[in-house]
Amino acid sequence: MRRVLLAAALAAGLAGTAHAVEGMWQPAQLPKIADTLKQHGLKLDPAKLTDLTAYPMGAIVSLGGCTASFVSADALIVTNHHCGYGALQYNSTPQKNLIVDGFLAKTQAEELQGSPDMRVFVTEEIRDVTKDVTAKLNDKMSGAERYKAIELAIKELVKGCESDGYRCDVYTFHGGYSYQLIKQLEIKDVRLVYAPPESIGKFGGDVDNWMWPRHTGDFSYLRAYVSKDGKSATYAKDNVPYHPKHVLKVNPQGVEQGDYVMVVGYPGRTNRYRLADEVQSSIDWVYPTQIKVYEDTLNIINTAGKADPKVAVKYASMVASLNNYLKNFGGQLEGLRRADAVNVKRAQEAQLEMWLKQQGGADNTALVADIGKLRQAIAADKSTRERSLDLGLVNRSSMLSGALRLVRLSKERAKPDLQRDPGYQQRDEVRIEAALKQMERRYDPKVDQQLMVYGLQRYVTLPKDQRLPALDAWLGDAKTEAQLSQKVAALYAGSQLGNTDERLKWFKADARAIDASNDSMLKLAVAMQPQLQKLEDEQDARAGEMSKLRPRYMQAMIAWKDSQHLPVYPDANSSLRVTFGNVQGVAPRDGVSYAPFTTVQGILEKDTGVEPFNSPKAELAAIKAKAFDGYASPKLGTLPVDFLADLDITGGNSGSPAMDANGQLVGLAFDGNWESVSGDWLFNPQLNRSIQVDVRYMLWVMHHLDHADNLLKEMGVPAK
Amino acid sequence: MRRVLLAAALAAGLAGTAHAVEGMWQPAQLPKIADTLKQHGLKLDPAKLTDLTAYPMGAIVSLGGCTASFVSADALIVTNHHCGYGALQYNSTPQKNLIVDGFLAKTQAEELQGSPDMRVFVTEEIRDVTKDVTAKLNDKMSGAERYKAIELAIKELVKGCESDGYRCDVYTFHGGYSYQLIKQLEIKDVRLVYAPPESIGKFGGDVDNWMWPRHTGDFSYLRAYVSKDGKSATYAKDNVPYHPKHVLKVNPQGVEQGDYVMVVGYPGRTNRYRLADEVQSSIDWVYPTQIKVYEDTLNIINTAGKADPKVAVKYASMVASLNNYLKNFGGQLEGLRRADAVNVKRAQEAQLEMWLKQQGGADNTALVADIGKLRQAIAADKSTRERSLDLGLVNRSSMLSGALRLVRLSKERAKPDLQRDPGYQQRDEVRIEAALKQMERRYDPKVDQQLMVYGLQRYVTLPKDQRLPALDAWLGDAKTEAQLSQKVAALYAGSQLGNTDERLKWFKADARAIDASNDSMLKLAVAMQPQLQKLEDEQDARAGEMSKLRPRYMQAMIAWKDSQHLPVYPDANSSLRVTFGNVQGVAPRDGVSYAPFTTVQGILEKDTGVEPFNSPKAELAAIKAKAFDGYASPKLGTLPVDFLADLDITGGNSGSPAMDANGQLVGLAFDGNWESVSGDWLFNPQLNRSIQVDVRYMLWVMHHLDHADNLLKEMGVPAK
Repeated sequence: MRRVLLAAALAAGLAGTAHAVEGMWQPAQLPKIADTLKQHGLKLDPAKLTDLTAYPMGAIVSLGGCTASFVSADALIVTNHHCGYGALQYNSTPQKNLIVDGFLAKTQAEELQGSPDMRVFVTEEIRDVTKDVTAKLNDKMSGAERYKAIELAIKELVKGCESDGYRCDVYTFHGGYSYQLIKQLEIKDVRLVYAPPESIGKFGGDVDNWMWPRHTGDFSYLRAYVSKDGKSATYAKDNVPYHPKHVLKVNPQGVEQGDYVMVVGYPGRTNRYRLADEVQSSIDWVYPTQIKVYEDTLNIINTAGKADPKVAVKYASMVASLNNYLKNFGGQLEGLRRADAVNVKRAQEAQLEMWLKQQGGADNTALVADIGKLRQAIAADKSTRERSLDLGLVNRSSMLSGALRLVRLSKERAKPDLQRDPGYQQRDEVRIEAALKQMERRYDPKVDQQLMVYGLQRYVTLPKDQRLPALDAWLGDAKTEAQLSQKVAALYAGSQLGNTDERLKWFKADARAIDASNDSMLKLAVAMQPQLQKLEDEQDARAGEMSKLRPRYMQAMIAWKDSQHLPVYPDANSSLRVTFGNVQGVAPRDGVSYAPFTTVQGILEKDTGVEPFNSPKAELAAIKAKAFDGYASPKLGTLPVDFLADLDITGGNSGSPAMDANGQLVGLAFDGNWESVSGDWLFNPQLNRSIQVDVRYMLWVMHHLDHADNLLKEMGVPAK
Repeated sequence: MRRVLLAAALAAGLAGTAHAVEGMWQPAQLPKIADTLKQHGLKLDPAKLTDLTAYPMGAIVSLGGCTASFVSADALIVTNHHCGYGALQYNSTPQKNLIVDGFLAKTQAEELQGSPDMRVFVTEEIRDVTKDVTAKLNDKMSGAERYKAIELAIKELVKGCESDGYRCDVYTFHGGYSYQLIKQLEIKDVRLVYAPPESIGKFGGDVDNWMWPRHTGDFSYLRAYVSKDGKSATYAKDNVPYHPKHVLKVNPQGVEQGDYVMVVGYPGRTNRYRLADEVQSSIDWVYPTQIKVYEDTLNIINTAGKADPKVAVKYASMVASLNNYLKNFGGQLEGLRRADAVNVKRAQEAQLEMWLKQQGGADNTALVADIGKLRQAIAADKSTRERSLDLGLVNRSSMLSGALRLVRLSKERAKPDLQRDPGYQQRDEVRIEAALKQMERRYDPKVDQQLMVYGLQRYVTLPKDQRLPALDAWLGDAKTEAQLSQKVAALYAGSQLGNTDERLKWFKADARAIDASNDSMLKLAVAMQPQLQKLEDEQDARAGEMSKLRPRYMQAMIAWKDSQHLPVYPDANSSLRVTFGNVQGVAPRDGVSYAPFTTVQGILEKDTGVEPFNSPKAELAAIKAKAFDGYASPKLGTLPVDFLADLDITGGNSGSPAMDANGQLVGLAFDGNWESVSGDWLFNPQLNRSIQVDVRYMLWVMHHLDHADNLLKEMGVPAK
C-alpha cells in the first residue's frame, strides 16, 4: 500500500517532497536550512522569517496554551474554536448558550468580554541569555546549589525585563544547553467576536479527536483591546482595538495536494531527546499506571455524578480531560510499540556513543562518561516515582492542595521577592487568589474526599522510608479504605476552607496566624509543608544535577549531527517555532490510504442528527445543493473541510496559522492524526500528520451560513 | 475522494468494471446475462456454469451453513477455518488444543473424525417444482388452508425424492413465486485434514470481524469419506475417500487488481425485496429491540460467568454469538441509515406502481391492489411481534424448550409421517434426540432460570388479549422480578429434565405418558403446548396469506424489470448461487481509500503478541526475511493476504471458492466489509465488498510455515 501511495505521489510530481522534514525550528535557525525550505516550495526569503517584528512572524501571537494570528489592522484574531472556547463558556447561560448556537458580533460594540483570564501574548523579543544564566555555575556546585543558582539568575533576568504590560520568561532549551529570555506584550482585554455553532466548530467531538478523516470547523475569532493610550489594560468598556505591527493576509484559494505549507506557533512540550531508558519507563510504568489511575478516578467521579447531576456538572471538564488523556495514553502506547521506539532510541544512542569514541580525545571521553551518569540519574529517579505519583493523588483534594498553597505562600511572603520560589512571587499572587476563589466551581466535598482517600490508599503501600512523617502521624493506624475514609471525613468536618470567604481570609493572613490556626486542614498542611518542601528541595537537587547532564547529552548530539551537516531543533518548550512541509495524505497502515483533504461530502456521511454529529440543517441543505459560493476547490471539484500536512506540531500549536509559500493564511492547525500522538517521543515522517481546517471552509461557513461578511471585509477577503 | 478513486480505476484500465453487478444468480439464469459476464472478464462459456455436474460447478459443495470445494480426486475439501472449526473443537482437549496449535495429517490414516453432525452436501439436481407445489392451490383457500396445502405438497415431493444417502428439500424463491426441489448427496463421514493455527486462521478475531483491512488466513481442509461401496455412511474406520465428479483447479498465481473473479456458494438469507415498511420496522423496532435484549442477555450471562468460570465456559459460544449479532445489528442500523434505505425502497415501490398503472389492464390493477394488501398484512404482523419475541425469550430456557419439544413430538408421532409437522417427522427424530442429549453441555440451571425470568418480565407487560392462559395460570399473581424468580425456581425444583437420562426417557415416551407426567416442567409444557400450537396455526395462516401476496409483488417486480431487459435474481435462500465481479478496493467514506489487497506487512503492523493479534513467531520472522518462496505477487512486490472484490455474498457463502476467469481457485470468500453488513437489505455497488483470503497466502502458509506439502502435491500445485 505504501508503494501504491508513493507511486501516486510520484505521479503527482511530489517526488521531492515525499519525505517530511521533522523539526520544530527556532526562527533563528531557519537561514541554516534555507535550501531545504526552498526545495519544499517556500517563496519568501527564509531570512525574513527570523525577524519577529516583520511579516509574517509579527502577526502571530500566543494565547498561552494556544496560538493565534492577527488578521486585521484592528487586531481581529483568528484561532481554533477550542482555543476561544473559554470566551464562549464565559458568556453562555442555560437560556442563551453561545457554545451551542455560536456567536457573531456585527459591530465592535457587540463584541463580548472574554473570560478575565484570557490573554494575548505578542512576542517582541527573543534574546539568548545562556551566558547570563550559566555565568555563576561551576562544577563543584552540588545539584541543589546549581538549581538555586539557575533559579536566581532566571528570576533576576525576568525582573530586569518585565515592565508595565510586558511579561518576560526565560525558556530552557535542550534541557539547559541554552536559555532564552522572551519578552511578550501581555494583552488582557480579549473579546469574543465570532464563533460558528458547536455543531461546526466541534463537529465530531471527542469521537473524532486525534482522528482522520476529520470534518471539524475548528475556528473562531477574538479581538485584542488596549487602553486608549495603547497600553495593556484589563477589560474596560472604553478600551480600543490594539494595532498590531503586522496582519496575516488571507489566501482564499487555499492550497492543494503537494503545495508548500508551514505552521508557526507555540508548541508546548516534546520528548524527542529522551533516552531509551526513559521511553522504556514510560511504556512499562508511566502510561500503564496513569491509565489505571485515570480510570479509577473516572470511576469515582462518574459514580458520584450518576447519583447527583450537580456533581456531574462540576466535574464535567475534569471528566473530559481525563478521557482525553486516557485516549492519548492509549495512542502513546500503541504508537511507541508500533515504532519500536525503545530499540530505535537505543540504536541511536549506541551510534552516538560509537561516534564519540571514534572521535576520541578527553572531551569526548568525558561526554561518554556524562551520558552514563545521565542514565544513572534517570534510573535513580525511578525509585521515587511511585511516591511522587501518590502524593500528587493525595493532593487531588482541592481542600488539601488549597491549604498547602496557603501555608506555602505565607512562608514565601516572608522572603524578599527575588528569594521567593517561582510561582510564589509577587507577580504570581493574583493567579493564586483567583484559583482560591474559583475552587468551589469545580468542587464537591464528597468527591473531593473520595479522591483524597484514593490517593491515600496508594500512599499507605509505600515503603516506610518513603513516607511523610506528618501524614503518617495524622493517619495513625488507618490503612483500609474504610479507615481512611473515616479519617478524611473527620479532616473535612474540622475545616472551614470549603468556604470561599474563609479561604480568602487565610490568603491575606501571615505565617504566624496560619501556623496557629485550629482549622484541621490547615493544621495538617502546616505539619506536612516542611516535609514536602524537603522532598521538593531533593527533587530540585536532582533537577540541578540533570541540568548539568542533559546539556552534555545534547552537546554530544549536536556535535554528532553537525558532523553530518544536520541542524538540531530543540524539544518544544512553549516558545515560538516554525514547522514546514507539504500538503499530503498518508497511508496509516497496510491497505489504507487517507486523502490529504476531506470534503463536505463527509459531513453528509457522518451526520446522524445527534451530537457530536449534528450538523446545522442549513449546512446539510447547502452541501446537498452544492451552494459553495465559489469557495470550492477546482481541483477537488467540491468544498474541502480539513487537510493533512506532514508538519511537526504538538499541543500548543492549536490555532496556529497554516501559511502557504508566500506566508499567507490557508488554514489553522488544530490536531494531529492518531499516529502522531506518540510523535512527541519520535516523529515518523511516513505516518505523522498535522490536521488543519481549510481556509475555504472557514470562509464559506462565515459567508454562507453565518453571514459574517463584516469580518470577511475587515480581513480584506474579496466579496463573493 | 470517490473522484480520486474512480480516476485511479480509470487509469488502471478498469473503466468497464467500475460498476459492480449486484446479484446472487441462480446457475440457470447465467446464460441470460452471458454478455455481462464476458464484459467483466469471464473466459469460460457461461452456459457451462448451468451444468451442476460439469466443471467447475460439480466441485462445489455445501457444508450446511458454509460452502466448500473439492480440490482433489480423493475428495480433499477446502473451506474456511471458521467452517471447519467444529472439527477442531471436537478433537481438542486442554492438553492438546488443535484450535490453538492447528493440525496437519501427513497421511489419510492420520486424519481425524470430524464432529458427528458435520455434513458435506453435493448438489446433484435442481428441478423446478412450482407447478407441483401450486397445483392444488386456489383463490378461495383461506391462508391456513393454503399453508397446509403447500406444506403437504412439499412433504410429498421430498418423500418421493429422498432415498438412501440423499437429502431432498424444496426451496422457496421470491416468497413463493417459484419452488425448486434440490437433491443432494449427504456425506456423513467428514474428517479433519489440516488447519493452520488459530493465530493465522482466526487472526484478528472478533476485533477484525466484518472489517477491512483484514489479515486472516481463514482456510482449512477436510475430506469426505463414504462406505467402501461408495455410499453415504456415518463414520467408520474403513470408509474410503469419496470420488467427486469434478475437482477445482488451483491457480497459484492468484488474481490482481481489476481481474475477473466469481464466487459460487450457498448464501443463506437476504431481504432485498422487502418493502419499505419492513425496512422501517427493522430500523424502528426490530434491531433496536434486539440490541436491548441481547445486551441484557449478555449482562445476565457475563455476571454469572464472572462468579463461576465453569458457567463462562458453558456459555462462551452463546456469548460469542450474541456479541457477533450485536456488532452486526449496529452495522445494519448504521448502513441502513447511511443508505437512506427506507426512502430508496419507497421510491422504488412508487416507480413500480406507477409503471403498473401506466401499463393498465385488469391484471396490473389487480397487482397494484395485491401490493396494497401485502402492505396491510405486513402492518398486521406488527401487532404480535412483541408477543413473538417475548415467548421466544421465555423459551430461551433450555428446560422449557426441551419440555415443549418432547410434548410436541409425542403429539406428532401419533400422526402418519406425511401429516406430521416439518421438523417433527421421522427424518427429524435423530436430530431432536441429539439436541436433547447435548443440552447439558451448554446449560447452567441458574442462568437458564434467569433467562426465563427475563423473558417473563417482558411477557407480563403484554396486553391481556395477547397472553397465554396456561402461562398466566401458572404465573398466578407473579409480576415483579422477585416474584417471577420464585415461581421459576419452584418450577425448576420440581423437574428432573436437567438429567440427560430423564430427557431421553421422555423422548421415548408416548403422549399419554407425557400428559400424565408429574414433572413440573412437563406439566407446564403440556398445558402450554395446545395454546402455542394455536398461535403457530395463526402464524401459518398469515404465512399462507403472505405466500399469496409476496409472489404477486415479485411478479410485478419481475415484469417491470423485464420491461427494462433486466433479469431479477431471487433473495438468498441457502440454494446454490453465483456472484461475479472484479478485484477492487473501495472508498468507504470521505477521505479514505482501501486497497484491494492486504499484504503480510499488515501482519507485522497488527501483531501485538496478544490474541487475536498473536502471529506465530515463525511467520513474523519469515515476513521480516521476505521468505515468500515465489508466492509473492510480482505486481504488489510482496505477499498478499486477503483481497476485496465487488461480489454479492452473505452468510452461508463462507468458504466459497473465489474463481478466476477460467474457473480456477484463487481464494476463499470468508466475510464482507462493514459497509456490506446492511447489504442484506440493499446492495450498494460503491460500498459493498466481499473479503477473500488469497490463494497465494494459503499456499505459502501451507508450504513455508506448516509444511503441508503432501496436500499441495495432492492438489497438483507445482512444488516450490
